[in-house]
Amino acid sequence: MKIAVLGTGVVGSTVGTALVGAGHSVWMGSRTPDNPRAAQWAESVGEGAAYGTFTAAARFGEMVFNCTSGAASLEALRQAGAESLRGKVLVDLANPLDFSRGMPPSLTVCNTDSLGEQIQRAFPETRVVKALNTMSCRIMVDPGRVPGRHHVFLSGDDARAKADVAALLAQAFGWPWESILDLGDITTARGTEMLLPVWVRLWGALGTPEFNFHVAGAPARPPVAEPVPDIVAIVSPPA
Amino acid sequence: MKIAVLGTGVVGSTVGTALVGAGHSVWMGSRTPDNPRAAQWAESVGEGAAYGTFTAAARFGEMVFNCTSGAASLEALRQAGAESLRGKVLVDLANPLDFSRGMPPSLTVCNTDSLGEQIQRAFPETRVVKALNTMSCRIMVDPGRVPGRHHVFLSGDDARAKADVAALLAQAFGWPWESILDLGDITTARGTEMLLPVWVRLWGALGTPEFNFHVAGAPARPPVAEPVPDIVAIVSPPA
Repeated sequence: MKIAVLGTGVVGSTVGTALVGAGHSVWMGSRTPDNPRAAQWAESVGEGAAYGTFTAAARFGEMVFNCTSGAASLEALRQAGAESLRGKVLVDLANPLDFSRGMPPSLTVCNTDSLGEQIQRAFPETRVVKALNTMSCRIMVDPGRVPGRHHVFLSGDDARAKADVAALLAQAFGWPWESILDLGDITTARGTEMLLPVWVRLWGALGTPEFNFHVAGAPARPPVAEPVPDIVAIVSPPA
Repeated sequence: MKIAVLGTGVVGSTVGTALVGAGHSVWMGSRTPDNPRAAQWAESVGEGAAYGTFTAAARFGEMVFNCTSGAASLEALRQAGAESLRGKVLVDLANPLDFSRGMPPSLTVCNTDSLGEQIQRAFPETRVVKALNTMSCRIMVDPGRVPGRHHVFLSGDDARAKADVAALLAQAFGWPWESILDLGDITTARGTEMLLPVWVRLWGALGTPEFNFHVAGAPARPPVAEPVPDIVAIVSPPA
């Protein structure tokens, strides 16, 4: 699949590299066409990796990963342009972290709204799926790093888009079907973004970001908010 | 131990009953001395159970459980009185849920403050430990209901108080040592209270409150924020 990865930080390069490794073609997008980190990333990955502006990357991608920092996401997506994003699935990995008061960060938006919802409102013709934002990026692309069962949450208004994201998480990153948990519509992104404060404190208490949330007691086959027959064929384990 | 349970709802009666079952003497406190639900609870439990005002219960308790609804907690604790709570460990189970906008609830305080911190500031001579607020009350008192490992989080400024709460969770409710995770000072209560929005949505997605959060990858022996030698003797598993 052709995939845009917006953002040149650790999350963008980790996710981009893993997607190329899984056989996808990835354009890394940034504010400028000649971002040195994007260039270095593309060179290190080689075939399947390219880079350019947010707009060029978004135009290229059939699916778009938002790996920009939460505070910069709306502006980055505006630069990408509504036209480039129209009809596409946008996987939103960003968290609206506010470091202006120092550590630990607070959130710029929470409780009665979320970054995921802000993005969906700003780009109503794009199908936003909040996902992967509740863990360190090395775990996003390699869930086996953390022993035992643990979860990745999906939030979004479009069931087909969530099914597509679930299929990609399984194919590209190795997420087991039973670990992909559909929380419901995009307003459930409030819940996963509001996991960040305890995530940050867990990092402090444990001394490592190598952990992930598991919902103990959740059935091995998570319910899907709406009937999505195709997803079963795509990512269910063999009978 | 003599324990006060403030609040006559499902949380208070479930916790109170379990504490009596573990050999403790429990006074259930409420606004009035003749609350019918408190009277019914005490009658159904029998020996070891009593009831009265918030003040009477708090005076009786060597440890105090705040099981009131979050919106009513500060007023209930003011009725109990700073003098009755002085020097004691207050286990705060409440969440600042705001149902005024309908379902799902938002929080009345979050992000840069928490109910746990508000209570600690209002009662500086009481040692507040936020705990158990991230799960259904039936799981609080019987963690074995949920299969596999899962966690209970502690937040508080006083290491000795957290050690006492951890010991009681192990003795009275059967929490394994390795499932008790000390997050740090009382400001970490922001993190656990902010778990409620995703908890509520998980309840919706799973159709049951019979689940709990597990931090996959956390070492089996959680770090304790400060050295607390006694807790090891009290709740550590046999060598």
